[in-house]
Amino acid sequence: MTPTRSFFTPLQSGRVRPAATGSRSNITVSSPFSFTLISSEGAARLGEFRTPHGVVQTPAFMPVGTQGSVKAMRHGDLEALGAEIILGNTYHLFLRPGDDLIARRGGLHRFIGWKRPLLTDSGGFQVFSLAERRVISEEGARFRSHHDGSLHMLTPERVTDIQAQLGADIAMVFDECLAYPSERDAAAASMRRSVRWAQRCRDRMMQLRGAGLDGVTVSNTGQAQFGIVQGGVFQDLRTESVAATVAIGFEGYAIGGLSVGEPTDLMYEVVAATAGRLPATAPRYLMGTGTPEDLVQCVARGIDMFDCVMPTRNARNGQLFTSEGRINIKNARYAEDDRPLDEACDCYTCRTHSRAYLRHLFMAGEMTAGTLNTLHNLSFYLDTMRRIRHAIAFNTFEKFRQEFLRSATRLLSDS
Amino acid sequence: MTPTRSFFTPLQSGRVRPAATGSRSNITVSSPFSFTLISSEGAARLGEFRTPHGVVQTPAFMPVGTQGSVKAMRHGDLEALGAEIILGNTYHLFLRPGDDLIARRGGLHRFIGWKRPLLTDSGGFQVFSLAERRVISEEGARFRSHHDGSLHMLTPERVTDIQAQLGADIAMVFDECLAYPSERDAAAASMRRSVRWAQRCRDRMMQLRGAGLDGVTVSNTGQAQFGIVQGGVFQDLRTESVAATVAIGFEGYAIGGLSVGEPTDLMYEVVAATAGRLPATAPRYLMGTGTPEDLVQCVARGIDMFDCVMPTRNARNGQLFTSEGRINIKNARYAEDDRPLDEACDCYTCRTHSRAYLRHLFMAGEMTAGTLNTLHNLSFYLDTMRRIRHAIAFNTFEKFRQEFLRSATRLLSDS
Repeated sequence: MTPTRSFFTPLQSGRVRPAATGSRSNITVSSPFSFTLISSEGAARLGEFRTPHGVVQTPAFMPVGTQGSVKAMRHGDLEALGAEIILGNTYHLFLRPGDDLIARRGGLHRFIGWKRPLLTDSGGFQVFSLAERRVISEEGARFRSHHDGSLHMLTPERVTDIQAQLGADIAMVFDECLAYPSERDAAAASMRRSVRWAQRCRDRMMQLRGAGLDGVTVSNTGQAQFGIVQGGVFQDLRTESVAATVAIGFEGYAIGGLSVGEPTDLMYEVVAATAGRLPATAPRYLMGTGTPEDLVQCVARGIDMFDCVMPTRNARNGQLFTSEGRINIKNARYAEDDRPLDEACDCYTCRTHSRAYLRHLFMAGEMTAGTLNTLHNLSFYLDTMRRIRHAIAFNTFEKFRQEFLRSATRLLSDS
Repeated sequence: MTPTRSFFTPLQSGRVRPAATGSRSNITVSSPFSFTLISSEGAARLGEFRTPHGVVQTPAFMPVGTQGSVKAMRHGDLEALGAEIILGNTYHLFLRPGDDLIARRGGLHRFIGWKRPLLTDSGGFQVFSLAERRVISEEGARFRSHHDGSLHMLTPERVTDIQAQLGADIAMVFDECLAYPSERDAAAASMRRSVRWAQRCRDRMMQLRGAGLDGVTVSNTGQAQFGIVQGGVFQDLRTESVAATVAIGFEGYAIGGLSVGEPTDLMYEVVAATAGRLPATAPRYLMGTGTPEDLVQCVARGIDMFDCVMPTRNARNGQLFTSEGRINIKNARYAEDDRPLDEACDCYTCRTHSRAYLRHLFMAGEMTAGTLNTLHNLSFYLDTMRRIRHAIAFNTFEKFRQEFLRSATRLLSDS
């Protein structure tokens, strides 16, 4: 157990001030973002980070609000479920309604009416998913919009500017995302390009925090920026990426390029080795992961933050997570099942409705099926994170992990 | 102003008891349903009716929950908005998940988890809307399901049985719905058939309330049954229908066959004349209507109950009702409009979000657009009903009506 002081000292006001550091950048400017490690058990960490829009307890799960809305949810629902931070997608918001429009509204918080912390990704993952619709060069990524085929260019600098205009509390660097499997040489070249891009993102961020840039509205002067570690499943490349990314210096560090098809055990290995090399004084964010068991297993390996569309997307497809395993609500066995989805769950859906009704709504194609299912799945995810934090605080996390893996992650026979 | 006593005296328990009446049926059995007229101003009436699941204040608007769910809403939302009764569609629930399954769940209330009053329509309107997929005879309506083309027969008796199994607090008789325009002879023949069917529905209801029927589960022993007045736009046919339907004797009376394409002024005329001939001691329900101005204008002509998909369906299409007129949220003029939808509205949507965000969600195809828009439109409808009731209570309804017609019903130029 290693309580530590804050990585960055919060400023008195929301304004940032320049401060010389040992970073490669000639000028760096600190952000009011700070991370405090409260307690740990093995590699699992209990902590919290502070942002201009409030505190987030870690380990944290961030529901995904791609277009400025967590699908099928209202912000009030997310607050009631205990979501302390949500994620927006830069790629989607850049294309529609556009970062300029959002900046004119006062930034993403004011535009969408969400008062708690926000994180925006860099759009890297979405752009690389466009496959034949994009061309990557050292400069950046040229791509055609999935909406209308219009041509766009995203560079590390542009992505930093867009995120500054969106004004989330945490911005991510623009990184190259590699498919799995990849050859070692390709993974190395891609990782090193991501490091160069990370430096360009950080340099741009420092300009924005300092004198600013014409034509770029900084919607949130307290915005933090996280670096992203790449390197595929090659441990030495991950180690090289950690060293180079930490040398640039960010308020937090993400592990990217996982949950892209590699075997789960391999992912856990890479997570354990990579997280262990990241500074203890900054939050560690595993991007795009995962199942409930992934959350528990990766907290056990030192991860503090997660995001994933799984609880929301699966909910809309009728796949529900419960304390006794997964349920596919389409299954005919639930047609006359008067029990709640999960007797251990206190969410609105479980307090109000039976499996029989939820199955009926799903089969009838009612929108409310998506809402009720999403409420439940997010409740399950966020409740799992609460139980994880509680267990670390009381030094019972390892026991919790063993019990959780025996029960909640079971696949019921029909799923 | 004519306070009156209850039409039916509530029983001590939820069970019904037989009681001889002067109705054409040899045995009639009263229901615990009762209507109390509290106050009136001109033809406008303030009242309430009691059901086994609680009291409903009138004039009332009933949100439509076709398949056992008001689209995009949770029951908790409807309760918070002040909806005291919702409507389910017998046609849809009969086909999926089936009235037998719902009866095994304990009836529609328990199946869907809604604790307040419920009304089910008879399915007549839906069956007649199937056009070439149905054949009407004196016996009833034979039709093919819009889901899978399977063949079904609905008769007045069967529809009464299905509704008994669903167990809503109010059931409707099976009636023939005529298109507009119709020839007078066709309207007369159809109205008289509806009267014969209404008698068959009432006879069946009395059997169910009395000794019961093998194979039919009466899920709500306190279920009331409403007759439906037909006759198109022909006043003498409406008068004949009123007389014949009231002679059969029901707990309430509906006006059917309007809002099917006739001019609004003609509808108002028929409503005024028909409502004025119905007993003052029973609630009067105008089926399938209407716009906010229709509600106000028809309350002024003696109507106590309404249902309509307009607030929910229009919401999902981006058409929103406000105190200053209608808004089509798709319109580009709202892209940078930071104002709430309706500054006079206290709903979650108006308290939390701007027009700019609502437009973005709609253009982005987010499900949450449907939810937020529906919340607002239903809030507007239910708030309008509250204001109507308040105005009648204070004898200011006529003043309210004039003001309402000047403001809220205005079509903004872009709609």
